[in-house]
Amino acid sequence: MKEYVIIVAGGSGSRMGSSIPKQFLELDGKPILMHTIEAFLLYNGAIEIILVLPEGQISHWEELVHKHQFSANFTIAKGGTSRYASVKSGLSKIKEEGLVAIHDGVRPFVDTTVIQNAFETAKAKGNAITSVALKDSIRKVLPTGGNQTEDRTHYRTIQTPQTFQSQLLKGAYEVTELPTFTDDASVIEHAGHAIHLVEGSYENIKITTPEDLYIAEALLKKRHR
Amino acid sequence: MKEYVIIVAGGSGSRMGSSIPKQFLELDGKPILMHTIEAFLLYNGAIEIILVLPEGQISHWEELVHKHQFSANFTIAKGGTSRYASVKSGLSKIKEEGLVAIHDGVRPFVDTTVIQNAFETAKAKGNAITSVALKDSIRKVLPTGGNQTEDRTHYRTIQTPQTFQSQLLKGAYEVTELPTFTDDASVIEHAGHAIHLVEGSYENIKITTPEDLYIAEALLKKRHR
Repeated sequence: MKEYVIIVAGGSGSRMGSSIPKQFLELDGKPILMHTIEAFLLYNGAIEIILVLPEGQISHWEELVHKHQFSANFTIAKGGTSRYASVKSGLSKIKEEGLVAIHDGVRPFVDTTVIQNAFETAKAKGNAITSVALKDSIRKVLPTGGNQTEDRTHYRTIQTPQTFQSQLLKGAYEVTELPTFTDDASVIEHAGHAIHLVEGSYENIKITTPEDLYIAEALLKKRHR
Repeated sequence: MKEYVIIVAGGSGSRMGSSIPKQFLELDGKPILMHTIEAFLLYNGAIEIILVLPEGQISHWEELVHKHQFSANFTIAKGGTSRYASVKSGLSKIKEEGLVAIHDGVRPFVDTTVIQNAFETAKAKGNAITSVALKDSIRKVLPTGGNQTEDRTHYRTIQTPQTFQSQLLKGAYEVTELPTFTDDASVIEHAGHAIHLVEGSYENIKITTPEDLYIAEALLKKRHR
């Protein structure tokens, strides 16, 4: 079955305190986004890559591709004003049925086992949402202003990839966007499908703050050892 | 008002893949636990420190104190078979009323602002539980085996210090231990008190896995820059 990945790279550098979009920040001498692309190519060298970038960042990206002599094949789709619009734009590039993983551009540490498991589960069950157990205790903040303890084992932290049978995801994306659509799982859930959780990894971090960039450097150093 | 901190250092090295208890692992040439103690001394050089250690680790700790010429003053309390028992053991060392922070031995990056805020709120309101907003989406796993999306803004990740008026915490610890007592907030809540959340920090991580140790090294490097 044909495999696609839509890599959503819509971020600015604002939370990073940088004028460079966070997906273009360098890790080990190379933009984060290139590490992310390579993680999927390591899993499947023939995977079809669709890169969703804000229109204003496309020429910058092309300069980076040239500068780093980055030879991977990918299709660019223009990002929208929301994650929903961006994924929908990416989906429009998929012409042939298959399986599609949606992945954050700033999660470069996703490993082959996680990707493979997601594709296999999505093939069998329609969708596969990567998640990990909560490491810390949580409390629920109540509408009254109070808060109460919750059993953290009843919750899962959601990551990407979120992987789907492409026709199923396209169908779910035919509706008008709702404010509750925070990720692709919520879109699929709204369409009436049960969500299948698969195991992610604690290293599969989303790089959004300056601390995260330090942590990313540390994880990379650990991999190199 | 007299200020105490009970530092609970009951961990083994098992999740760390190490035979050295995680609180004794070195960070920048010094056991993690010494960094944690110094964080509280930086806030208040006169704070009374109660260190809860498993009985079998006390002589190892004393060797480390000697080796590193660690000059801080502290009282040692023997750890119990649960966190509840360990905190209760630490509380038994408090003779004079005051404010008491309970803190994980493996959270060395707690900063002065967080500690100060916790003591001030506990003084005014009886308790102060350090917490941060969730960075990632979560889903709730249902008893039926399914799962559903949850609004992450309705939840807070709980850290330490958890800070209390000492007589209030001692009173709450007079009950028989329950399996729902996962932290001090849950003990205080069981005693019928409303919980007051205060702001923690994302750097205030709990070092429990080998990845965490790499992240800790990175955070330390960032602080030094």
